[in-house]
Amino acid sequence: MEFSELIKTATVEDVLLSRPGLPAVRGTLCITSHHLLLSSCPRGDLELWLLIRNVDAVEKRVQNLGWYQPPRTGGSLRDTRVSGSSGTITLRCKDLKVLQLEIPGMEECLNVASSIEALSSVDSVMMMYPFFYRPPSLRLQQGWHLCPPERHFQQVASQTSQWRLSTVNRDFSACPSYPRAVIVPAAVGDDTVAKAARFRQGGRFPVLSYFHPKNGTALLRSSQPLTGPNRRRCREDEKLLGTILDEGERGFVIDTRSAQVARQARMSGGGTEPKSSYPQWRRLHRALERGRPLQESFAKLVEACGEPAPSMERWLGRLDGSRWLSHVKAALSTACLAAQCLDREGCSVLVHGAEGTDTTLLVTALAQLILDPACRTLEGFQGLLEREWIEAGHPFQLRCARSASSHARGKQEAPTFLLFLDCVWQLSRQFPFSLEFGEQLLLTLFDNTYASAYGTFLCNNERERSLCKVKESTHSLWAWLNQPEEKQKYLNPLYSLNPLVIWPSVEPQSIQLWQGFFLRWIRPSQHLDEAWVEIRRLVEGNSSSTKEGNSSSTKEENSSSTKEENSSSTKESTGKRLSQSLPEPPAGTENDAEAWTAGTR
Amino acid sequence: MEFSELIKTATVEDVLLSRPGLPAVRGTLCITSHHLLLSSCPRGDLELWLLIRNVDAVEKRVQNLGWYQPPRTGGSLRDTRVSGSSGTITLRCKDLKVLQLEIPGMEECLNVASSIEALSSVDSVMMMYPFFYRPPSLRLQQGWHLCPPERHFQQVASQTSQWRLSTVNRDFSACPSYPRAVIVPAAVGDDTVAKAARFRQGGRFPVLSYFHPKNGTALLRSSQPLTGPNRRRCREDEKLLGTILDEGERGFVIDTRSAQVARQARMSGGGTEPKSSYPQWRRLHRALERGRPLQESFAKLVEACGEPAPSMERWLGRLDGSRWLSHVKAALSTACLAAQCLDREGCSVLVHGAEGTDTTLLVTALAQLILDPACRTLEGFQGLLEREWIEAGHPFQLRCARSASSHARGKQEAPTFLLFLDCVWQLSRQFPFSLEFGEQLLLTLFDNTYASAYGTFLCNNERERSLCKVKESTHSLWAWLNQPEEKQKYLNPLYSLNPLVIWPSVEPQSIQLWQGFFLRWIRPSQHLDEAWVEIRRLVEGNSSSTKEGNSSSTKEENSSSTKEENSSSTKESTGKRLSQSLPEPPAGTENDAEAWTAGTR
Repeated sequence: MEFSELIKTATVEDVLLSRPGLPAVRGTLCITSHHLLLSSCPRGDLELWLLIRNVDAVEKRVQNLGWYQPPRTGGSLRDTRVSGSSGTITLRCKDLKVLQLEIPGMEECLNVASSIEALSSVDSVMMMYPFFYRPPSLRLQQGWHLCPPERHFQQVASQTSQWRLSTVNRDFSACPSYPRAVIVPAAVGDDTVAKAARFRQGGRFPVLSYFHPKNGTALLRSSQPLTGPNRRRCREDEKLLGTILDEGERGFVIDTRSAQVARQARMSGGGTEPKSSYPQWRRLHRALERGRPLQESFAKLVEACGEPAPSMERWLGRLDGSRWLSHVKAALSTACLAAQCLDREGCSVLVHGAEGTDTTLLVTALAQLILDPACRTLEGFQGLLEREWIEAGHPFQLRCARSASSHARGKQEAPTFLLFLDCVWQLSRQFPFSLEFGEQLLLTLFDNTYASAYGTFLCNNERERSLCKVKESTHSLWAWLNQPEEKQKYLNPLYSLNPLVIWPSVEPQSIQLWQGFFLRWIRPSQHLDEAWVEIRRLVEGNSSSTKEGNSSSTKEENSSSTKEENSSSTKESTGKRLSQSLPEPPAGTENDAEAWTAGTR
Repeated sequence: MEFSELIKTATVEDVLLSRPGLPAVRGTLCITSHHLLLSSCPRGDLELWLLIRNVDAVEKRVQNLGWYQPPRTGGSLRDTRVSGSSGTITLRCKDLKVLQLEIPGMEECLNVASSIEALSSVDSVMMMYPFFYRPPSLRLQQGWHLCPPERHFQQVASQTSQWRLSTVNRDFSACPSYPRAVIVPAAVGDDTVAKAARFRQGGRFPVLSYFHPKNGTALLRSSQPLTGPNRRRCREDEKLLGTILDEGERGFVIDTRSAQVARQARMSGGGTEPKSSYPQWRRLHRALERGRPLQESFAKLVEACGEPAPSMERWLGRLDGSRWLSHVKAALSTACLAAQCLDREGCSVLVHGAEGTDTTLLVTALAQLILDPACRTLEGFQGLLEREWIEAGHPFQLRCARSASSHARGKQEAPTFLLFLDCVWQLSRQFPFSLEFGEQLLLTLFDNTYASAYGTFLCNNERERSLCKVKESTHSLWAWLNQPEEKQKYLNPLYSLNPLVIWPSVEPQSIQLWQGFFLRWIRPSQHLDEAWVEIRRLVEGNSSSTKEGNSSSTKEENSSSTKEENSSSTKESTGKRLSQSLPEPPAGTENDAEAWTAGTR
C-alpha cells in the first residue's frame, strides 16, 4: 500500500477551520501521509498541524447554497461541483478536540473526508507515523530501556533474596504478553514457572509487581487460573504461590471480578484459586468495570460534557448515568485495599481478573503510587508506566484504537489507561505536594496512547514491539519528555518528597470530575493554566534567588530566568520548521493540541 | 434574665470530646455564659473553646452501662445517678462541625444539654457575645464606617452628576430597612422619593446600587411595587424610574421571581411594573429560590455530604436532589444577565423580587463583583458586603438564626448569603488571579454571620443596629480582619489586578461543589491548605527578594521572613490567654474552628 493511493485530494484552497473557543482560520489545507496541514491565508503566518491518527470520527455534511438543484437523472458527477456548493467536515479527535472544516466544492469535501477516513484507519503498525518521525534533537534508541526489569530487580535484590530474575520467557514462549525477563520467587525453578504458566490464561503466571520494603510483603499479578468446570489443579502454580508465604502466613487474592463472574468464568475454562488448593490465600472480590461497558461509560461522559447548556439536573443525571466516577471510585478503592493488605495487614497480595492485562494493572500500578514515594517522581512514574503497563502487556494498540467518538467501535477498545490517569489526577488533587508531575503530563500521556509521533505506546506487548523493531525504528516518548526544557512543563512546582503512604479519600463526595481532561477543549482553562505557570515562575524565582544566596544581583537573576523562559519558548517556536517545498510537521512537540493552536511562526 | 439561671451545671470532670478526623480529648468541661470550654486532663495543655451561639442542634443520648435497672415505681430522681450511667451529647454546629461529648453521669449529661440548649437559644441581641467581647488589640468604634453611603456617593459623584445622596430616610421613616442615606436620581426631590417609597413593599424604593462608569448605566434595586389586584399606579415611582432613562433609552427590570409568581403576588398587594406605566422598562423574569426551599436545599446537601460511604450513584442522586448547585447556577446566570445588560447592552437595570432583601441583593452584589475590579480587592469586597448586604438590610438575624441541622427551623431562615459566598467561590475558582481574597475569607464570613464575637452581622438592618447601639457597644469584624497579621490569612497570593469584566462560565459542567465549605469538617483539606500556605510563602519570598533587589543578603531576607511568620504565629498562640481563675475565651481569633482545634498553649 502506498499512502498516495489513499489521498484523493492533496490540497484545497480557501478552507475555513473552526475550533471552539478560538478564532476561525482560513487557509490552504494539505493532506500528507500522516498530517493535515492548514496554512493560513493570505499572510501564511499560521501553520496548523494535525496528526491524522488523532482523528476518531469524520462527519461530513454537504450543502448547496442558493440556486443549485441536484441533477435528477443522467447528471454526471461533475455536475455536483458547482460554484456555491460546499461541505462541512467535522473531525472528532481521539483527544476529544472537535474541529470543523468548511470546504468549498462538494467533490473536494467528499474527497478530503474519505482521504482522512482512509489514512486514519491504517492499522498496520509499521505504517504509523512513529516509524517516519525523525526529530533533529533526538537520537534513535535514546530513552528506551528507561526501567528494564533488570533494574527493577536490582532494587528488589538489594532488599531481599527471596526473589530472582527469571528469563524463562526470553523467547516469549511461556507468556507472549510478558517481557523477556520477570521476577519470580527464588525458591522455584524455571521449569515450575513454565508449568504454572500453562495453568494461567495467556500464560500470565504470577510475577512480582512490587516488593514492599517496610515489611517484606509482595504485590503479585497474574491472569486467572484455568481451573475450568472440572476444578483442575496445578501443583506448580500452587507451589509458586505457596513459597511466597511462610508457614502460618496469610495472603490475599484480590480478584477484580465479582464472585459470580469469577464462578461463571469456570464454564469457559477460567476460574479462581479455590480455598482447598491454596489454603493460605484468602480471596476478595472487587468488581471493576472493563471492556465495552467502560468504553461506553467514557463515550457517555464525553457526550454529556459536550452538551450545550443542559440544566443542572440533566447534567448531574448524565454524569451519574455515565457511571464514570463510580469506576474511578472503585479503582481507587481496590488499589487502597491492596495497599492496605500490604502495608497495614502485612500480607502479600496477588491481583488478577480474567486476562490480567487491564484492571489488574490498574490496581497494581495505583497501589504502588499510593505506597511507594519512588513512583511519585517524574522519573519513577515513567518507570512505573514502563513496568506496569507497557512491559506488563497492556494491549495499548487494541484498547486505544478508537476513542470516545468513533461509531465504528470494536470490541477491544477500553479506556482502562485513561481510568488510571484519572485516578492519578484524583491523587494529585488530594495530595498537591506528593507527586512530582502535574496534570499536563497526564494529558500528554493520554494523547500519546491514542495518537503519537513516538513508539512508546505502539503494539500490545513486548513481543510485538520486538517483531516490529519499535525500539530500533522509532523514538521514545520518554526521550522527548525528559529533555530539560520540555520536562519543565510536566513538573509540579509544589512537589516535595513525601516519604509516607498517601491514603486517598475514596468517598464519592471527594471524587471530582477531571475537568482539565473532560472539558479541556470545551471550557478553556486558560486562567487556571496561567495560575499554574505563575506558581512555577514563583518557585523558580524563589529557588533561584535562594540558590544564589549572597549574590548581589537577585533582580538580575530573576530577570535572567525570565529571559531564559522566553528563549526556551522561542527555541520551541523556531524549532517548528518554517514551511518548505514539502510540508512537514514541526519538529519539536508533536502534541497535536499545540500544533493546532500555537504553530505560529 | 441572668445567664447563671440557664446554667444548670457549670463544670463536669472527665468529659470525652470526639471530633471527626481529630484525636479525642478528655478533660474538664466548663459552661460559661457564652462558651463551652474543655481543658484537657491530666496535663491541661489544651484548651478548647466553643461559642455556644454556634450550636445549631443538641442531641442527647443517655445510656446505662451494665447492671443498672431504672426504678419502676417510687424511685427518686437521685436513683438515676448511678455509677456506670453516662450520656452522649452531639452538638451540631452552625458552621457544620459535629462534636460529641461523652459525659459521665446521666443527670450531668441532661443538665449540660439543657444548659447549652437554653444558652444557644437566647435571642435578645444585646445579650449576645459581641456585647461582652473586648479583645485587647482593638478599640471599640474601630472598623465601623468602613464604607458609608457617603463615600460610595463621592465615588459616583466624581463620574456623573445624575445622582444625589438623599437623607429622606435619616430617621428610617421612609424605609425601615434602608440606611439613613441612599443614592437616588438627582432629578427627583425627596418628597417624590418618599411617595414612591409608599408604593414599594417595606418602603424599599428604587436606589442606586452600582454606577457603571464605562457607559454611564446604572444598577438599581428595590422591592416589588404594590400594584395589587387593582393595578394601582404611583406617578412618583414612575417618575423616579423614568428620569433614569433618556428619551428612547431602554432599561431592564430583572424580577427574581417567575412571571407566574409575580402575577400571583398581585393578590396579596404586590406585583410588578406593568409595561403600560413603565413604557421604557422591559421586564425579564429569572426565578431564584429563596426562603424555606433554599433552607431545605442547604439542609439536604449538608445531610448528603455527611452520609458515610454512600455509593456514587446515591451521592450524585442526593447532590442533584438537594438542588443546591442549580441555585448556584441560577444566581450566577442572573447576575451575568444583569451585568450583560449594563456592560454589553448599555442599558440600566432595576433588580427586585418581592421584599428586595434577599435574591435582589444576591444579584446586585454578584453583578458588581463581575463588573467592577474595585469590588474584587479585600477592602473593596468588605465595602461591597457592607453596602449591598448589611446596610441594604439583608435580615441576617432572621436568616441566620439557625443553620442546616436545626430541627426547630423557623420560617425566616434562609442561606441566601451562603449562596452568595458559594457563587463568589465559583468566581474565584474560575478566575484564580482576579480576587484579592481567598476561600478562608469566605469561610470566616459564613461563620460570623451565624455566630460571632463581632457585631457586624447582628440585627436585620441599620435601624435595629442603631437602636441596639451595635456600633457603639460591639467590635467590628472588619477591624479584626484588617489587622496586618490577621489579614495575611485571607489574601490570595496569586492576586493581580484584572481591570476587565470577569464573565464566569455558568454551564452546569463548570459549577463545582464547594468542597472547602461543605466537606470542611468531614474531609480535612489539610494538604490543600498547606499548598496554599506554600504558595503564599513563595510569593512572599519572591516579592521580598525582588524588592530587596541588589541587597547582598537574599538568603537572610528569606530566612528572616520565615522567622517573621513564626513569630506572628507565636504571637497568636500566646495571644490565647493562659487559663486563669475565671475561664475566658482566648483573645485573638474568635473563629471557633480554631478555638476547637488549635488552642494549645
